[in-house]
Amino acid sequence: MRRFQEELDDLQRSLLEMAGMVEAAIHDSVRSLVERDEAMAQQVLRNEKDVNWMEIQIDEQATRLLALQQPMARDLRFLTAAIKINNDLERMGDLAVNVAERSLSVMRLPPVKPLVDIPRMAALVETMVHNSLDAFVRRDGDLARQVLPADDEVDGFKAAIYEELIHFMQADPSTIPCAVDLMFVAHNLERIADHATNIAEDVIYLTQAVDVRHHGEMPG
Amino acid sequence: MRRFQEELDDLQRSLLEMAGMVEAAIHDSVRSLVERDEAMAQQVLRNEKDVNWMEIQIDEQATRLLALQQPMARDLRFLTAAIKINNDLERMGDLAVNVAERSLSVMRLPPVKPLVDIPRMAALVETMVHNSLDAFVRRDGDLARQVLPADDEVDGFKAAIYEELIHFMQADPSTIPCAVDLMFVAHNLERIADHATNIAEDVIYLTQAVDVRHHGEMPG
Repeated sequence: MRRFQEELDDLQRSLLEMAGMVEAAIHDSVRSLVERDEAMAQQVLRNEKDVNWMEIQIDEQATRLLALQQPMARDLRFLTAAIKINNDLERMGDLAVNVAERSLSVMRLPPVKPLVDIPRMAALVETMVHNSLDAFVRRDGDLARQVLPADDEVDGFKAAIYEELIHFMQADPSTIPCAVDLMFVAHNLERIADHATNIAEDVIYLTQAVDVRHHGEMPG
Repeated sequence: MRRFQEELDDLQRSLLEMAGMVEAAIHDSVRSLVERDEAMAQQVLRNEKDVNWMEIQIDEQATRLLALQQPMARDLRFLTAAIKINNDLERMGDLAVNVAERSLSVMRLPPVKPLVDIPRMAALVETMVHNSLDAFVRRDGDLARQVLPADDEVDGFKAAIYEELIHFMQADPSTIPCAVDLMFVAHNLERIADHATNIAEDVIYLTQAVDVRHHGEMPG
């Protein structure tokens, strides 16, 4: 058996590979919507099975490491964080697929309005996702903490988008199917932000634990 | 330290207590919508913090047991299943809160139509939730397998509800805000069903593992 630390490094690499796939899915799903690019949306749908396969691999890898030996407190926290982050990533991948499906539906309808707030909201959500994962790689609790306030900003975007879309629907009922799709896009983006927040919170927990182990429990 | 098995039994009891709270939240959130009962919806919102507190307790309990000693394969599978089911229950609790919030919003608007399909869909979802948890308690893989096909039926309900609500919105734009709330109720119910499906899949994995341990790896 290889050294336990190498196995943990492998697990982290797998998680980052999965993270890259999920970040690409989020980005491409929104781009397919903005650019009305059907091939790109279809590609997001096709990639879903790779993300799901990866989730199962990571889950098995982490569970096996939990079973292999009694991990030290720090490694145990890393392994439980890895299981949770893996789960969050898989759900974010599902949500990107939902966005791609709405995007395909929107393409078949006349445009309601130029998309302005959704791309802005998406950019903010992508930054949250990227920073939460970057904080995980670097075990950077401060960066993870910076992710949290953005969640309120995302909620604000969503509320504004809903309000605007409801006005459109009321002014012109022919826009309803498209506006409903766009509401669900905003809803899915908000949920992706929630998962980025979960990851950031896991990183804060993980780094606090490291801190406690290194500096805590001072005598006296 | 008490015997490990007693600790596992405690954990299962905590999970079932949490399950009871979440089942009640789902039931009351839908009832508050159907009966336009504001006090009941408010109660669901107030109970959320108890569910969240319970999730943290169970998570710590399970993680501590993982750390305490190197569990046997079967106990390890139970502990990782417990962590996942706990997470699913907490999210179902959140979704019930979303339903209660939509219910409060709907109460402030004139009724669009008598609610027929939503209560039917909710009854099916509640059965899925109950059976998946019952399968967990009894480690009954067959019962868990019966939960899975209902997920397609739930998707069918959702699609029919969406279609009907879009017709209402197009026929009378004044119904839009209420119809949007009801679409999100159906969406939240569908997501609760997805979590029940997750739990059923965890139970299948858990019971298969027991089977493998007892009967598997025959020589020859």
